[in-house]
Amino acid sequence: MDVKPKVNGDLKDDEDNRRPAAIDGPTNPMVTPLLTDLYQFTMAYAYWKAGKHNERAVFDLYFRRNPFGGEYTVFAGLEECIRFIANFKFSKEEIAFVRESLSPTCEDGFFDYLEGIDCSDVEVYAITEGSVVFPKVPLMRVEGPVAVVQLLETPYVNLINYASLVTTNAARHRFVAGKSKVLLEFGLRRAQGPDGGIGASKYCYMGGFDATSNCAAGRLFGIPLRGTHSHAFVSSFMGTDEIIQKSLRSHDGSSVCQDFVSVVHTWLSKLKRLSILKGVFGETNQSELAAFISYALAFPDNFLALVDTYDVMRSGIPNFCAVALALNDMGYKARGIRLDSGDLAYLSCETRKFFQTVEKEFGVPDFGKTGITASNDLNEETLDALNKQGHEVDAFGIGTNLVTCYAQAALGCVFKLVEINNQPRIKLSEDVSKVSIPCKKRSFRLYGKEGYPLLDIMSGENERPPKVGERILCRHPFNESKRAYVVPQRVEELMKEELPTLKQNRERCISQLEQMRPDHMRRLNPTPYKYME
Amino acid sequence: MDVKPKVNGDLKDDEDNRRPAAIDGPTNPMVTPLLTDLYQFTMAYAYWKAGKHNERAVFDLYFRRNPFGGEYTVFAGLEECIRFIANFKFSKEEIAFVRESLSPTCEDGFFDYLEGIDCSDVEVYAITEGSVVFPKVPLMRVEGPVAVVQLLETPYVNLINYASLVTTNAARHRFVAGKSKVLLEFGLRRAQGPDGGIGASKYCYMGGFDATSNCAAGRLFGIPLRGTHSHAFVSSFMGTDEIIQKSLRSHDGSSVCQDFVSVVHTWLSKLKRLSILKGVFGETNQSELAAFISYALAFPDNFLALVDTYDVMRSGIPNFCAVALALNDMGYKARGIRLDSGDLAYLSCETRKFFQTVEKEFGVPDFGKTGITASNDLNEETLDALNKQGHEVDAFGIGTNLVTCYAQAALGCVFKLVEINNQPRIKLSEDVSKVSIPCKKRSFRLYGKEGYPLLDIMSGENERPPKVGERILCRHPFNESKRAYVVPQRVEELMKEELPTLKQNRERCISQLEQMRPDHMRRLNPTPYKYME
Repeated sequence: MDVKPKVNGDLKDDEDNRRPAAIDGPTNPMVTPLLTDLYQFTMAYAYWKAGKHNERAVFDLYFRRNPFGGEYTVFAGLEECIRFIANFKFSKEEIAFVRESLSPTCEDGFFDYLEGIDCSDVEVYAITEGSVVFPKVPLMRVEGPVAVVQLLETPYVNLINYASLVTTNAARHRFVAGKSKVLLEFGLRRAQGPDGGIGASKYCYMGGFDATSNCAAGRLFGIPLRGTHSHAFVSSFMGTDEIIQKSLRSHDGSSVCQDFVSVVHTWLSKLKRLSILKGVFGETNQSELAAFISYALAFPDNFLALVDTYDVMRSGIPNFCAVALALNDMGYKARGIRLDSGDLAYLSCETRKFFQTVEKEFGVPDFGKTGITASNDLNEETLDALNKQGHEVDAFGIGTNLVTCYAQAALGCVFKLVEINNQPRIKLSEDVSKVSIPCKKRSFRLYGKEGYPLLDIMSGENERPPKVGERILCRHPFNESKRAYVVPQRVEELMKEELPTLKQNRERCISQLEQMRPDHMRRLNPTPYKYME
Repeated sequence: MDVKPKVNGDLKDDEDNRRPAAIDGPTNPMVTPLLTDLYQFTMAYAYWKAGKHNERAVFDLYFRRNPFGGEYTVFAGLEECIRFIANFKFSKEEIAFVRESLSPTCEDGFFDYLEGIDCSDVEVYAITEGSVVFPKVPLMRVEGPVAVVQLLETPYVNLINYASLVTTNAARHRFVAGKSKVLLEFGLRRAQGPDGGIGASKYCYMGGFDATSNCAAGRLFGIPLRGTHSHAFVSSFMGTDEIIQKSLRSHDGSSVCQDFVSVVHTWLSKLKRLSILKGVFGETNQSELAAFISYALAFPDNFLALVDTYDVMRSGIPNFCAVALALNDMGYKARGIRLDSGDLAYLSCETRKFFQTVEKEFGVPDFGKTGITASNDLNEETLDALNKQGHEVDAFGIGTNLVTCYAQAALGCVFKLVEINNQPRIKLSEDVSKVSIPCKKRSFRLYGKEGYPLLDIMSGENERPPKVGERILCRHPFNESKRAYVVPQRVEELMKEELPTLKQNRERCISQLEQMRPDHMRRLNPTPYKYME
């Protein structure tokens, strides 16, 4: 079936320019036309009964407040929305279920109508995915027959809300961690359900993370995967006696070490005898040592060890170094260690010193730079605290706080009717921040001399758009006292005709975030970005 | 394929006793053996390479702290775990992806091994789904070949964490709302992704909610559906002139009213002229009136109107009453109204008075009891505040705070190795609360004279279980000073041989919560329940 909505742009195949014949369905096969609130069907029936179902309606999708106490949001989830409407069609079984769920007095004609609908008459205008966006400015404008567009409300808001929230959260973590750090998303096990996990992996990557532990997401989206071993792996070993197969071929294939275990033990003795390390450690844990050796024998060119199952400085680090030095003898370079508990600032600095000592004492080039990964309930605050204390961590693995958006678990996107049959519509409210802005709008981002975006401005569809170098009076839609003259140096229309790949969206997200005026981006008490009309 | 793990019990078909030939796969088809962390595969390879992959391991799944500042948790997600392992099998494509993701040096034999594995050799012991549970006491014990059980860790923790968290959240909302209120889950649009929404609907129902707005969940799980119309529906109408089809057949089919719109207008005039309502309202909003009439014509026996698009007391309620009274003339009983903004305590009380006035003035029996539903960002605190202020709400629609578990967005379930090859294993930690309890355990709930559960006790697999009427010394596993003698009046073993339906789990959940000693259940500062060994 080639149902093609009038989307501006089309999905491009990853990496090359082959265009798919039709747009694939949503990543999660559970995203069907039934994934909506019952009231969308009761309304569809009432529209149909009143003969209004084909009236042309315009809905704006937007949010009212930036999340996490910040002054920006990253827009994400659009591709899934497009995949959804490109394949929107009710099956007979779904229609039978809708019939059961509505009143027995509903007329048959309605179900025939439902069977016939698709989204070929729906137009979607949207800000490009991965863009930095602000409250009240529409992220998407959806136009089409009122009954059909109404059915899209719930899945659209669902697909945008969490996607944008978690992308923003990832961007905020990246901002605090700094550009030079490797950020790994480790959240699958704590995510809100299976595709809370899969969505998190996709959107954290978009928001600037480098890799994920989630294999399903790696496969679906081509995200780099990372992961080595857990505490259970360490404690499943008893001691080095149980290692049967002890041989290791050298990296260049030229020789085979028949007893790698002995070489490790020798290195451990050498480390212990080093006068500079005297008293730092005594007997290390043998179950841990056996686990590290086994892991190194399995992955000699990718040896990364979790060092905190027993005692980081007295067991984990010496055991790691012994194995890493034995690997070094065979031409392999160990990847590094992971810390998953304790005082990460202190332990990472102590570990770095230990590595530097090994480099110096045994003349192993770059051993001092061996990678240090940290995990254990990290979030923006703990990253910020680590920065302030000073640390030697190269890579952060972040899970729970990132994927569940623990600091604020929901974004409040809404989907509001702004026009029907060319008549503007408004929802009033006693709370002025909840009043919707009527009419079909265009929106523009105005840039100043320094290249920073100055403000976003909305105008009626037929108003003259802002022009570079022209003075424009910008008014706040609900606050007459807020007004300003602006002379933009660059004007960018926000709803564009493109639908790029995840990697392109990721690059846009990262570059747009870098382009923002720094005071809008501060973690605490940032300056609000302006929107006007 | 009939892969059957050694599960104690089996899935029963809903409602009747037909037993399915095989267990269906997980609700979400994205729950595949690839939905796991990469390190489960790197470990599996390292186990395989060391010849340890078939060693018999025992893992406990448990959590360390109750969520939401409470002293209890409801266990949920088990059925999905069982469906997962019952169908656990890698496809050739999945194995090819694992091969790509691991090191090119990994040996072929491992991928042949992966292709052959299923969970027929895995045994799962679990507390019954829907049970009230406490920290540290294992919710599940999973035994099997270490490499296979390790692969289950991530999906198991993912499937249990959110399920148990949101079920507990639902139970807490039910506790505050009270038994007599109708609780509706309206969270799909704000959920963390599509199956954050579907899972929320399933588990909120288990936790004591009565219905959901989510059609997909209604279809998948047989949960009652509820929903009527939104603000957009109201504002899509201009006025009553646009209503073309105005006739309505009476409820008993005996007569047809040709112009229902006029009847409504007449009732509105009568309401306006009532001396007792003089000055309460003047002109009502005609767009809203048209929407209400259209909705009533579509669903005359299920008329429930959202009354806050313009002004609740000056427009929404009078418009609703006029339509409800016109419906009453035709033998229909209006269902009620929904409030979605403003001071819900005040508005619900004013609305109730208005309804009672109508009942009295026009002699319409029970009109005063017309249903009042409230929504708008409700949570435990707002429900509690409403109770304290006094309100007249009959049903609550709860979304964002419920489904995203906004007050605490994650539960920290862990999956720890406690035994391998009959050897006890322990994970130490500087934080005593993170130390795991070694060995294969049994756990029992001891009940006191009043019928309340007193404490949960863990014992080694081969220790003598506690007996009714016998004095037992219970010790805290990490705190020697915490010990107590208990004489149980009833002893219940916590891991049972059954796997019941969603409705049975819901009933268990509700009855177990009612059975708890009230001070454990307090919203604020509850008394901790004890676990001992």
